Amino acid sequence: MSAAFDDWMKTVQARAEAALDALLPAADVVPHKLHEAMRYTVLGGGKRVRPLLVYAAGALFGADAQALARAAAAVEMIHAYSLVHDDMPCMDDDDLRRGKPTVHVAYDEATALLVGDALQSQAFLVLAEGMDIPAPRQVAMLRLLAHAAGSGGMCGGQAIDLDSVGISLTLEQLEQMHQLKTGALLRASVVLGALAGADVGPDQMKALDAYARAIGLAFQVVDDVLDATADSATLGKTAGKDAAANKPTYVSILGLEPSRVLAEKLRSDAHDALAPFGEKADRLRQLADLIVQRKA
Amino acid sequence: MSAAFDDWMKTVQARAEAALDALLPAADVVPHKLHEAMRYTVLGGGKRVRPLLVYAAGALFGADAQALARAAAAVEMIHAYSLVHDDMPCMDDDDLRRGKPTVHVAYDEATALLVGDALQSQAFLVLAEGMDIPAPRQVAMLRLLAHAAGSGGMCGGQAIDLDSVGISLTLEQLEQMHQLKTGALLRASVVLGALAGADVGPDQMKALDAYARAIGLAFQVVDDVLDATADSATLGKTAGKDAAANKPTYVSILGLEPSRVLAEKLRSDAHDALAPFGEKADRLRQLADLIVQRKA
Repeated sequence: MSAAFDDWMKTVQARAEAALDALLPAADVVPHKLHEAMRYTVLGGGKRVRPLLVYAAGALFGADAQALARAAAAVEMIHAYSLVHDDMPCMDDDDLRRGKPTVHVAYDEATALLVGDALQSQAFLVLAEGMDIPAPRQVAMLRLLAHAAGSGGMCGGQAIDLDSVGISLTLEQLEQMHQLKTGALLRASVVLGALAGADVGPDQMKALDAYARAIGLAFQVVDDVLDATADSATLGKTAGKDAAANKPTYVSILGLEPSRVLAEKLRSDAHDALAPFGEKADRLRQLADLIVQRKA
Repeated sequence: MSAAFDDWMKTVQARAEAALDALLPAADVVPHKLHEAMRYTVLGGGKRVRPLLVYAAGALFGADAQALARAAAAVEMIHAYSLVHDDMPCMDDDDLRRGKPTVHVAYDEATALLVGDALQSQAFLVLAEGMDIPAPRQVAMLRLLAHAAGSGGMCGGQAIDLDSVGISLTLEQLEQMHQLKTGALLRASVVLGALAGADVGPDQMKALDAYARAIGLAFQVVDDVLDATADSATLGKTAGKDAAANKPTYVSILGLEPSRVLAEKLRSDAHDALAPFGEKADRLRQLADLIVQRKA
């Protein structure tokens, strides 16, 4: 990674953190405990991959700072809520997330349930107010996020994941699950960033889609590789849990080395998809590299 | 209740059911089980109080059928998701809802969690697409629903409710909790119906707010009276559970008869608030009567 990219990342991560801090209800507003738990969940951690995608895509379309900040906060709130619910005892039953006790451990299950629910509402609220862009484009952003979050996106992927424990999936089924479970929100991040700047034409949308599809899959392939090879301290979450839970993964279906080769191919696909945008898309290219080369 | 009002209710309930049926993903779309469970949750039951409010308020402002159907479906999906999560073992742990096994009993806890999450997204999706109204008003509807559903509304009320088990609340604190927990979504139903028809001026908004506030409280006072006096078969849910859970209620704070008197006063307040709208508001008046006089 270049020093300039590293500086850009730090700047965007700080902006995303500031936006989340400003756009979450303050802990001294009633109900205190819920708001405190929402802030515990969202603030001070995470790689902020989705906000980085929002800002990198926004740069292609000259998006203004305020709309980008809200788009970045909204996708990160959806992502954070999904982690809270996913970690609950009735789902993955995980105690550790981003190196901290999960919300149902730090608080209790009922609070974790409500934190997730309230974060989802907050994400839509953040996109529905304070945006100085044309209303039709704002509606398009809300529609995109709702679709990416719901049963045709993230929640749908979770449901397929639940039903696939202990059964063998084909590579195509595994890909479909991940395109919904993580891919939909990563794609939404890219497109929200673009829409924060301008209406996006069909050819541009096609290029962004191809990019998002490649990094979405790459993200999951690398996750599976790391789950199989890294330790919990490095990951900040429990390692090896997918294998232990008998969940199908790229590593279990393809093997370790072919999974690494696939991730590399997807990185190259992501670069290719960005050709129409020229140099302006360098941040998106570097994010594809980061997603594939990350160690946690 | 007059025969004409009864016919109107049945018509609206049938329209709401048809809208929900059309606006929920079909059960033969992947993921099948999640979509089937979402439909199990929402369809074929419930008094549809919120859709009735949407349609009654919409009639004041000449709202078109399509916008009303979407607004009604959206609030009912939010309401239904809140019931699913509320019934889960980590919350109220209830087995019976609308006379049927609750979702975590009929399916499992993980599915119940996802059903609630996906229904919330679906509610926002329903308002964000297919609406033939000016985009700024559509954004206002999305903003209103997000606020009513989140930590400044329904989820916030749930959080206060959780924290109030076994402690004594003042009447003011109890009122604040219910204004968030159930009042916010009832108010949203009224205002969404109005916005489906037209921009709502400040004086009209004030009148609708006063009406919604009165029926929101009345709804809860009557719920508490019924919880203390009716049986589970009549209610279609477990009776007496608030008292058993040592939760503060209007009946526990005020006593049974004063609670009935309060409900009657709130009904009268609701009628008074509607004076500026004249006869056009008769359906809203009749709904206030229904809320106070219902037996389940």
